[in-house]
Amino acid sequence: MTRICVDMDEVMADTLGEHLRRYNNEFGESVTREELRGKGLWDVVASDRLDKLRAFLDEEDFFANLPIFPDAQRVLEELSQRFDIFIATQAMSVPNSFGAKYRWLQRHFPFLPPSRYVFCGDKSILRADYLIDDLPRNLLRFEGTGLLYSAPHNMAATEFTRMNNWLEIAEYFRERA
Amino acid sequence: MTRICVDMDEVMADTLGEHLRRYNNEFGESVTREELRGKGLWDVVASDRLDKLRAFLDEEDFFANLPIFPDAQRVLEELSQRFDIFIATQAMSVPNSFGAKYRWLQRHFPFLPPSRYVFCGDKSILRADYLIDDLPRNLLRFEGTGLLYSAPHNMAATEFTRMNNWLEIAEYFRERA
Repeated sequence: MTRICVDMDEVMADTLGEHLRRYNNEFGESVTREELRGKGLWDVVASDRLDKLRAFLDEEDFFANLPIFPDAQRVLEELSQRFDIFIATQAMSVPNSFGAKYRWLQRHFPFLPPSRYVFCGDKSILRADYLIDDLPRNLLRFEGTGLLYSAPHNMAATEFTRMNNWLEIAEYFRERA
Repeated sequence: MTRICVDMDEVMADTLGEHLRRYNNEFGESVTREELRGKGLWDVVASDRLDKLRAFLDEEDFFANLPIFPDAQRVLEELSQRFDIFIATQAMSVPNSFGAKYRWLQRHFPFLPPSRYVFCGDKSILRADYLIDDLPRNLLRFEGTGLLYSAPHNMAATEFTRMNNWLEIAEYFRERA
């Protein structure tokens, strides 16, 4: 069966949205996704705030309550009936996130057993046909077909097939098997 | 560069030894590795003790202080200079173990960066040339060359190249590249 690996942060989960919410709340700012076009949050924040930006990720509850991107649950459940789905998330740089990520996946994607979760650091380790990811560097290391999930920071990238939302993912795989 | 994936429990870490220690301590028994030849601890324990046997694994400190198998550190450090080494551990069935496994690897194998750790449930996801593992079912799912690390429970298996200790692993890879 054809295998699809799906990244979690910024593909299934609106991690940037949660990061923005905490940042704006802490510093009385109102930075939006739209303002970040072509850049990451790290690129627009004053250097004396970078430590705090990092610290948000280490808070125990950061990854516990991430919003889900629209249609991600329904489309992934449909795809899981025709494809071998694995969730591959970069967790090793934020070891505090392991438990919260595990529980978030169980709560929102109960049709995928934990045996399909992969917590890793280098996505070249994945043996799969497709990888849906927001980071071009992950797709470059992956040996199968990479699909770039749109995020503000990657809007300038042109070398990958781009998925703007989960309806486009459903459409892309409709005729594939 | 040729890539080797190494399982953690029962290959790098004497997980069974720790399990036996806790079991014997709790029940006043003296079960040894030798007695388990051809069997797992699960196979020899009375059914009313299986819940407790499982509960040991969920204790926060179980995976924190596992003994290291002889020569594992030195041989892995040498191999890491000639091969691309990843640690692939079945962590998804014991989610409490994530943090302790991460810290154990950092403490005892500091020459391997966390980006080389893979916490997974199904080892068919690994893209690598070799997998060293004590579980025949993991090796059967793996698409590269499987090497069976000897453990009491797998002594009857004959379908894989067997490694009895880390000196044999060093020898096996001496002429390979």
